[in-house]
Amino acid sequence: MEFVTGVKKPETLELGELLEEGMEGREVKVNGAVHSIRDMGNVGFVILRKREGLLQCVYEEGISLFDLKELKDADTIEVSGTLTRSEKAPNGVEIRMKEVRILSEPVEPMPLPISKWKMNTSLEAKLNYRPISLRNIRERAKFRIQEGIVRGFRDFLYTQGFTEIHTPKIGAKSAEGGANLFRLEYFHRPAILQQSPQFYKQMMVGVFDRVFETAPVFRAEKHNTKRHLNEYTSLDFEMGYIDGFEDVMAMETGFLQYTMKLLEKEYARELQILGVELPKTEEIPAVRFDEIKRLVSEKYNRKIRTPYDLEPEEEMLIGRYAKEEWGADFVFVTHYPSKKRPFYAMDDPEDPTYTLSFDLLFRGLEITTGGQRIHDYRSLMEKMEKRGMTDEGMEQYLSAFKHGMPPHGGLGIGMERLTMQLLGEDNVRETTLFPRDLSRLEP
Amino acid sequence: MEFVTGVKKPETLELGELLEEGMEGREVKVNGAVHSIRDMGNVGFVILRKREGLLQCVYEEGISLFDLKELKDADTIEVSGTLTRSEKAPNGVEIRMKEVRILSEPVEPMPLPISKWKMNTSLEAKLNYRPISLRNIRERAKFRIQEGIVRGFRDFLYTQGFTEIHTPKIGAKSAEGGANLFRLEYFHRPAILQQSPQFYKQMMVGVFDRVFETAPVFRAEKHNTKRHLNEYTSLDFEMGYIDGFEDVMAMETGFLQYTMKLLEKEYARELQILGVELPKTEEIPAVRFDEIKRLVSEKYNRKIRTPYDLEPEEEMLIGRYAKEEWGADFVFVTHYPSKKRPFYAMDDPEDPTYTLSFDLLFRGLEITTGGQRIHDYRSLMEKMEKRGMTDEGMEQYLSAFKHGMPPHGGLGIGMERLTMQLLGEDNVRETTLFPRDLSRLEP
Repeated sequence: MEFVTGVKKPETLELGELLEEGMEGREVKVNGAVHSIRDMGNVGFVILRKREGLLQCVYEEGISLFDLKELKDADTIEVSGTLTRSEKAPNGVEIRMKEVRILSEPVEPMPLPISKWKMNTSLEAKLNYRPISLRNIRERAKFRIQEGIVRGFRDFLYTQGFTEIHTPKIGAKSAEGGANLFRLEYFHRPAILQQSPQFYKQMMVGVFDRVFETAPVFRAEKHNTKRHLNEYTSLDFEMGYIDGFEDVMAMETGFLQYTMKLLEKEYARELQILGVELPKTEEIPAVRFDEIKRLVSEKYNRKIRTPYDLEPEEEMLIGRYAKEEWGADFVFVTHYPSKKRPFYAMDDPEDPTYTLSFDLLFRGLEITTGGQRIHDYRSLMEKMEKRGMTDEGMEQYLSAFKHGMPPHGGLGIGMERLTMQLLGEDNVRETTLFPRDLSRLEP
Repeated sequence: MEFVTGVKKPETLELGELLEEGMEGREVKVNGAVHSIRDMGNVGFVILRKREGLLQCVYEEGISLFDLKELKDADTIEVSGTLTRSEKAPNGVEIRMKEVRILSEPVEPMPLPISKWKMNTSLEAKLNYRPISLRNIRERAKFRIQEGIVRGFRDFLYTQGFTEIHTPKIGAKSAEGGANLFRLEYFHRPAILQQSPQFYKQMMVGVFDRVFETAPVFRAEKHNTKRHLNEYTSLDFEMGYIDGFEDVMAMETGFLQYTMKLLEKEYARELQILGVELPKTEEIPAVRFDEIKRLVSEKYNRKIRTPYDLEPEEEMLIGRYAKEEWGADFVFVTHYPSKKRPFYAMDDPEDPTYTLSFDLLFRGLEITTGGQRIHDYRSLMEKMEKRGMTDEGMEQYLSAFKHGMPPHGGLGIGMERLTMQLLGEDNVRETTLFPRDLSRLEP
């Protein structure tokens, strides 16, 4: 028997530690993957890929006690040597190598030029070689930014008194009706994959007042577009005791403000790698659905064809309008038509053909749907009846309302879409680790 | 058009704000759900349930400008009144009510006595009325602790250079073989729900060195026990450049140490509500599988019936042994037999009938399985061949190894089980918001 007492500092150093004051001239040990090698005979360079970035290691015949030819791309190695400042090296330091220990070796050469700054490879090829293409510095940086977004979402909501919940993804019935559901057999019973945690987070408002979840959702939609996935990560929250759906928009604005600051502070390296300029979030315009439709139609001379919905092109033009007129990257579009919203959306008492709900568009693409929900049991039942719905399979959801629920509202944010728009990508698969779409079920 | 500028401080105060210095005697506004009412004629008490706890509101005829009979359990209300210190009230303050505004009303009386300290209700009834039973103060406190565990996991791993990932739950093939998989149709193709993010996190070690994920996993196991769920939340990490599986155990110990401190600091209220004493995590004994089997067999005079596995009763006795002999709540059991571990587990070069792997038992129940993985492509292929496996459907996983992978290892922790053991519950459904088991697919 031995005791495990916690994490011990390893002998090998990380990039951040190498960059600390007073390290110059020190004998150090580092490990990493061989990202590229430049062999110039009696001198050479081995670029190591480490989790924090690239590290240049210098081979010098006579000083380095091994043959550079022993190394190849994609080896993982442990290097011992002297730390030296070097203005030409990435991050300004390099290691003059003495010894090298090979930890592992590949058996085949790289199928993609991952050590290039831009791979110039098709999206298709990048997805077909996903575990390899993600090793590219720019590719992987996208998913660090994505981490920052989700982290910002959670950390901000903790400060606002929200509780994190984990709700089931297999269910007997979905939150928002029968279409677009993946179906499976659950021990000889029909089951579905949840397309949203909507019902669960509403039920949990009765317990914790404010809740959030960051988890996968599943949509069997037969869209094959640049902005649709059949499985994605949804950042959901729901909050009780609101005065109106404006409180939900204010909370989302707070999240964006918090997260942009977090990215600036903790993910500056990745922002720089990707050349991303963060959008302004101090004030986000909110404009009615019918009004912005009219404004866009007038300004861009485009006929309104679908009075109850926004076409993708219209969303784009709203984004353009917000930028041109208000200098805004984000815009809330409020008061969506009731017929396009689910039954639990609260209708506007002043005009029940509209709802107290909103979408958030980011640079012309919808990244959030949210709004106030009906909290009164009788009103909920009335609306369901009006829509010809039964309460079958929704007994538990409805029981929460039967036994008292505060006024509440919430939203869902598509993590991959938000990342895509922030990074200026044009396909949501670029910001999805392992996308699931009509044709792609692997890797 | 209006601008949304972020979160504004509401007029209503939360419990923490009421408890601040200098609040006594102030006119305040609060909201909450009516948890219970005690009407004694010209005086009465309304206990409000707020997210941070209970708040006593006092009704006094003549001062309170409404009739106490207007209120009932499960109303949500907004109260205006004067804040007063009161030693008898929960949290030491109460509000002498002036006005009340009813925000929402239930339509039926409560099916469970949720305002009681202990409901004395069967687990079955609690699950059947889940959105209601969770409103009980003790019931909901469990899931605050659960939040703390997941938060501790993530926050600790951020400090250790891990990157959070989001991997798909629908796949063409699972990480650990064909048994126990839920199957579904994915646009006319056969698909499965992942029983673990194992393959994905390993592939991502080649990208970020250290990764983690906190997400649902799905197991179609036909167990119906107190410790099995068919869907649960798995806390997974995987780390590269390890010297051995001891590094993985050290990282888990670090997580536990960090998380116990976080719970102590940020979740003291809930620990007190549940009467939980946190386990010691300074040092965790690690003992070989064959050795602990022998020790337990000798000490408790119990014959070893299954030399290659641990029976539930044996796990319990190991927990008892660790407590009695080492004063430990946790114990790592190392070097599991190879035949009981998946193909990717690294065999012990000193005796390949065992693996460089471990389980962590917490008070006699397995809450973690982990270990070092095979990182060398040829060794991996050899082991697969020995087991009669083909590489069908695993091409992408294997390609990561073909193109170089560092030595690595990792683990998965069952969130609900860890919570269950920490809280001393005897059924994992007690610490699952909405359990999925052989018979339960709702709510």
